[in-house]
This record gives sequence, structure tokens and C-alpha cells, in this order.
Amino acid sequence: MPYSLTYRFSELALTTHPPESVIELSRSGLIDYLGCAFAGIDNPAYQKVRAAFLPLAGQKGSFLLGQETVVDPATAALLNGTLSHVLDFDDIHSDVRGHPSIVVLSALFAYLPNIPNVTAIQFLAAYCVGVEAMARLGRAMRHRHYETGFHATATLGPLGATVALGYLLNVTPDLLSNALGIAATQAAGLRAQFSTEVKPIHAGFAARSAISAILLTLAGVEGNRDILDSQFGFFKTLGMDDALPSICLNGWGKEWAFENPGLIFKLYPCCGASYLPISAFLELRKNNNFSLDEIEKVIVTFPSGGDAALTVTKPETGRKGQFSIEYILAAFLVKKNVDLSLFKDDAIAPDILSVMSLIARETDFQAPSLQEAPEKRFAKVTVVLKNSRSISYASRSLPDVSKQDIKNKFFQNTKSVLKKNSDVWYSVYFMRSVEDLDLFLKFLK
Amino acid sequence: MPYSLTYRFSELALTTHPPESVIELSRSGLIDYLGCAFAGIDNPAYQKVRAAFLPLAGQKGSFLLGQETVVDPATAALLNGTLSHVLDFDDIHSDVRGHPSIVVLSALFAYLPNIPNVTAIQFLAAYCVGVEAMARLGRAMRHRHYETGFHATATLGPLGATVALGYLLNVTPDLLSNALGIAATQAAGLRAQFSTEVKPIHAGFAARSAISAILLTLAGVEGNRDILDSQFGFFKTLGMDDALPSICLNGWGKEWAFENPGLIFKLYPCCGASYLPISAFLELRKNNNFSLDEIEKVIVTFPSGGDAALTVTKPETGRKGQFSIEYILAAFLVKKNVDLSLFKDDAIAPDILSVMSLIARETDFQAPSLQEAPEKRFAKVTVVLKNSRSISYASRSLPDVSKQDIKNKFFQNTKSVLKKNSDVWYSVYFMRSVEDLDLFLKFLK
Repeated sequence: MPYSLTYRFSELALTTHPPESVIELSRSGLIDYLGCAFAGIDNPAYQKVRAAFLPLAGQKGSFLLGQETVVDPATAALLNGTLSHVLDFDDIHSDVRGHPSIVVLSALFAYLPNIPNVTAIQFLAAYCVGVEAMARLGRAMRHRHYETGFHATATLGPLGATVALGYLLNVTPDLLSNALGIAATQAAGLRAQFSTEVKPIHAGFAARSAISAILLTLAGVEGNRDILDSQFGFFKTLGMDDALPSICLNGWGKEWAFENPGLIFKLYPCCGASYLPISAFLELRKNNNFSLDEIEKVIVTFPSGGDAALTVTKPETGRKGQFSIEYILAAFLVKKNVDLSLFKDDAIAPDILSVMSLIARETDFQAPSLQEAPEKRFAKVTVVLKNSRSISYASRSLPDVSKQDIKNKFFQNTKSVLKKNSDVWYSVYFMRSVEDLDLFLKFLK
Repeated sequence: MPYSLTYRFSELALTTHPPESVIELSRSGLIDYLGCAFAGIDNPAYQKVRAAFLPLAGQKGSFLLGQETVVDPATAALLNGTLSHVLDFDDIHSDVRGHPSIVVLSALFAYLPNIPNVTAIQFLAAYCVGVEAMARLGRAMRHRHYETGFHATATLGPLGATVALGYLLNVTPDLLSNALGIAATQAAGLRAQFSTEVKPIHAGFAARSAISAILLTLAGVEGNRDILDSQFGFFKTLGMDDALPSICLNGWGKEWAFENPGLIFKLYPCCGASYLPISAFLELRKNNNFSLDEIEKVIVTFPSGGDAALTVTKPETGRKGQFSIEYILAAFLVKKNVDLSLFKDDAIAPDILSVMSLIARETDFQAPSLQEAPEKRFAKVTVVLKNSRSISYASRSLPDVSKQDIKNKFFQNTKSVLKKNSDVWYSVYFMRSVEDLDLFLKFLK
């Protein structure tokens, strides 16, 4: 019998090791993940989730980031996953159409105390392989899944994180196939929760699902081992006739999702789909002189589907404004820059509110749909001035984020809560051995 | 602003109380649930799931059925949900297209210790309202959801159980709407896991999702409160253009799912979709004399889609045989009756295996599809004899299950593990007060 797609996917994930260049990139992913998590500790949404789940927790040596508390690995995955996503400031991957690091790393941190003698390189490699798996599943799932309403972070995440854990544990392809089935049958998360306090919990649930998948598999629970192939399985059911499962095998090890197209790091704590318009707006502002008073109207144009994640047009709070291009551009018009203070649960400030009505959203139905031509993704911002002049710029690629940008963001994010942030920074960029990883973990508490 | 569908659904669930006739029927549902759970305690699949999750559990006073162990409510819901479904011997509801009691009752038992002074009648009423909600959501979800590959027990269950908990806690419609959103965003479960040891865990996950939804809501976590209405919400995303959301409101309180069409109790521990063919076969055997040696072939005919849940045609083990009409009818041919011993993880006995090749499955494409005419559901069994005579019977309704049948099944299921089974039996059928419920709970440990 030929091996199933699920088996081959598992085998490739377990035997294809990331090269040093990919390991190096993953260090930036890790530092950015940690910065987003530490910045979230005082967030009210995280504190409520913590209050709900901490009383249920068992005690098994897994830690909550930035906290002395020790809990069981399932609760650690749940709470660290929620924490690292609570500000929606964490990385994105275009193949995932969502957030890979929060799920993969939260599961790895939660399970790590159960595995002796892991080197820092092995830990980073498991992270790379988990992201690779999640990106490949995302590519194969294609478009209808997300566009129908599933939150891809939450649905692809359990599988990506399960691959990462299986890699770290060095299980057999058979066992990883079994665990993937248990992960996939927990895949859940609705985009209707975008812009609410529930969205970040999706990342926590996803990370916990991976812990469950591995624990059940190690306990000998036998499930479907062909979940990527099966009728009524992952792609067939959640892909709704649009998925192309076999794609997930193409070119394993030749290209790595960490390098191509790579993680997208956020410099602004708002929805990733706002980045192209932000970039267009900043370009316009750089090259033109106009004051707020001179503006008649600002029009943001997307190809059809390009604003799918920007679900809110009239936000009442800063948090909801994370998913509103109207709020985000209004904030950029009023403030020089946007930062975390603009995306809290507070009502929207009157100065921004008054400008929000100037922003209009349009769809360019002439542009090929993103399904057919993802390279046609763009966002155009047109500023119409009261003197009837108008200026436009279409942005097709995101601005580069340098290692220095990531470092600045990390220190900014952690300055008030992480005393050892420079130790963490240096550890992440230089750690290789078992001892290095141990020392690094000590800095996180 | 008119109230949303979600709000009205929540309000009706919280304010429409089941009449005494429905409460009485729920007593049979409860006793059957308990029998299935107690019969499952020594099952290897349950024991493995318990071994995986018990080390993670916190200690908060929720009990595991039939065991002294006390755990946190989330773990109790997870393990009791798995336990009560592990034999696939528990009740079915045709509106759910799955199993309501295992999810609703497992969540209620897990959360009950957190609520003081609950009367037995209130507990039973919460169970009725939870099943009612689950049945209504199932009716409104319609067909594509299940047929695409979702396990309805697992996807509708979190919402039904959340309604039951909200009813018992007497929360506001606003809070229940919020909790329904958190339940719905956890809705997961793939039919690819049918016939594996993972399927019963779906019920556990679903019950635990309801506990999470309530705990997060009580902790003040704000989510989408219009999950039944929303684009990218429950019906839109999981219903895939087939759902008719508003149906779930029709006639609340006029009819109860417990009465019409009522729970289907299983007398054989195999997939509910096998019941019509079993019933046809038993009718044939009652009215005709034929021996196994005389049989040339047995043909089972379903309308298109009528065998959707019977996913296995060539089972290797008894457990997989639960979902194989070929195995089930072969077992009936060889044995006088079928019981739990035939559905274990053991390889299929040679005497049954040799008969299995006689059974053929056919689809009657002339019959209207079940979507268009659910009342056309039937299964026809044709026994072709070696003397070229053939006899047929088409069954359109399930055999009645009497209260005495349920009692016999309960005592049979519990005789080796529950010392106080007669106390439990009498408690369930007579309990009304707070004290009655307390006493009943004591008998379950």
C-alpha cells in the first residue's frame, strides 16, 4: 500500500531539518513572540482569561510567561497562547493567513519541561518545523476556508504545533500521523470573534489542542491516521472543495516558510490587513505636504477580498479599531504614529472619531481576485484635498522590518515588565546548547 | 434596534420551562446516560484518555462518575463526556443527528458542585432545555454540515451544554449570548474519527467547551454576542449556505424535542444508522424460517445518504464494526443477539468474518434524497436464499423502547461496577428536591 499523504507529511516534517539560515531567522520570531507576550501581561482581557482558568489548573512544572506561577502543560499552553496574542501585535505569515508563532511557541514552551536535555538549537528547529507545517497546511487549504469564516490561526494552529511537539519528541511518523488526527478534530475558531476579547483565546485553545493531541497519542489512544487524506477529514471537511491537499508536500526542505515568504513582523498593533494601506499612506505623507484641515476625503481601495480581515467599519472602542481601517487611518492622520495606547478597550477619542468619517473604503472589482492572482494584492490610498487636488499611492509590498526594528519593539514592549530584557535578547540570539536554553528559560520568569 | 436571533434564542431558553411530562421523560435519558457511563469505566479507550488527562487535573470538587477521584470542572466534563460515549451505547436525537445527553449531562454534572441548592427538578429542567437547544440548532443547521464531515455531537454540543449551564445558573440573556459565542468558536469534531478511540473524546471536548464558555463569561470576557446571526459566525461558517438560522426559534415551548421526536435509546451498542436495517432483519427472521447455511446473500438498501454514518465496510476490529452494517448484520446472523462483547478492540471472530462477505450494501437512487424528504428514511433488507427464493422487508421506523427495556439495560450495564444501582434507579425516577439531588449524587461515586 502506498503511504498516505498524512504519513508522508509526518515523515518529511520529522526528517527535514532546518538549515542554519532558517534557525537564525527563527531567533527573531522568538524574540518578537516574547515581546508581544510580556507587553500583554497587564492587559485586562488576558487577566480575565487567567482568572477564569487558573483555578482549574493542575501543578506540573510548566510556567506562565513573566509570572512565577507553575501549572500543568495544558493550562500553560492555553494561557501563554492567549497572552502572546492578546495585543494582536504578534507575527503573521501569508501562507497561514494568520499567526503561527503564538500557537507553535506556546505549545513548545508548555511541553518543554517534560523533555530532558533539549538543546536551544533543537528547540528553535522544532519551532521552524512547526511553522513550516502550518504554512504548508495553509497553502494546501487555500481560500474558501478562511473566507467562509474560519480563523486560520485557530484551525491550522493545532496541527502546526503538534508537528513541532512531535519533532521535539522525535516520535515516529505513525505516531505523528495519529496526533495530527487528534489535533485536526479539535480545529475550531470563528472569525466572528475578530475584534473581541475572545480572539486571543483562540491561540490558547489551539496550543492546548496540540498538547492534548500529543498526550493522548503517547497514552496510546488510537485515532484516524489519515486525517489529511480522509473523506470527512481535515481538508475535505474544513476546505469545502477548495483545498488541494497534495500541495503540502511540494518541495519540503528546498524552501522554508521562514525564509520565503518569511514571517511578517508588526510594527503597529493592529490587523495585518491594514499594513498595505498604512504603507501607502506613509508613502503619501512622506512625499506630499498636506495638513488634516486640507483633507476632504481619504479613500482606501482593495482588490475584492483584500479587506476580509478588517471586519469592523464603525468601531466603538480602540480594541475593535484594531480591525477597522477607518479607525487606523484616522489615528494615523491625527497622531504622528500609532501605538498600543490607541487599541485599548477605551472609547474612541473625539479627535480621532471626528476624522473617521473622512475615511471611505472601496473595492476594485476590476482587479483580479486574490484567489486567482495573490500577487495582485495591493491597497491604494487616495487623499482628496479640499482644493480638489487628489493624490494616490498604491502599495503592493510591506515595508521591510529590520533586526533593529525588532529589537526596538522588544525593548519597548518589555521595558516595564521584564527586568532581564537584555539578557533575554542576547540569549535568544546566541543560544545553542542545553545549558543555554536552561539559562534562557530562567530569564523568562 | 430589534433583538438579534442569538438574544431571542437565549431569552427563550432561559424563560421557557419544561412541563412535568418532559421532566419525566428526561429521567429515562438520565438513567440511560448513567448506565452507558458506568458500563464504560473499564473500557481501554477510556482508561487511556483518563491516564493522559488526570495528571493535568486541578482539584475543585467535581467528581468522575463511578470513581472516588475529585477534579476541576473542566477535567470532569472532559472525562465524563468521554466515558459516557466510549461504548457508543448512549442516546441519539434525530434533530441533532448525534448524541445530546452525553454532552449536556457531562457539563451539568461537572459544574453542579459550584452552584448551591439546586433542586433535582431544576437539574432535570436544565438538561431538558440543553437538549432542546441542541435539537433546535441541529434543525436550523440542516444537512450540509454533517454531510461535509462535521460530527454534530461535537459541534452542536458545546452550545447545547452552554444553554443548560446558563439555565441552571439563571444568567441574563445577554450573558448567555456571550457564552454561546465562546461555545460556538470552539465547535469542532470530524467524522473521520468515527470508529476510532478518538470519537468518544469529542463528547468530552464538547462538554468542556461549555464549561469554558461559562467560566470565561462569568469572568467578564467580552465576545461576539450575535454568534447565531453573524457573518463568519456559527451558522454562516459551519452551515455552508445550507443553514436556516431562524428555524431555531419556531415554537419554543409548544413542542419539546424530548417528546417529539424524542430521544432514541439504543438497545444495541452500535451506530444508530444500523437500527433500521437491524429492525428489518429482526422482522424478517421473526416471520421466516431460514438457517445461515441456506443464505446466498444479504442485501441492505438505503436511500442515498441513509448510510452516511456507517463509514466502515471492512472492519478489522469489533470497535470499527460499530460503524459497519456488514459486520453488524453478520453478527446478528451468527449470534442470536448482539451485545457489548462484539464491539471490543479484538479482531473479528472467524465465524463472523466468514459471514461478512455475504452482506452487500446498496443505495436506492430512486428514493427521494433525505434532505428533501426525511420521512422517506428507510432501510430494506433482502435475504437471498440458495434455493433462489428471496425475502425482503423495509423498515421505516425504529422499534419502541419501553421503560422496562431501559431499566433492564441500566441494570445490565451497571451490575458489575455500581453497587447501588437500584438506589440510583429509584432516585432518578423520584427525585425532586435539593436533598433528593444530594442523595442521588452520593450514590454515583
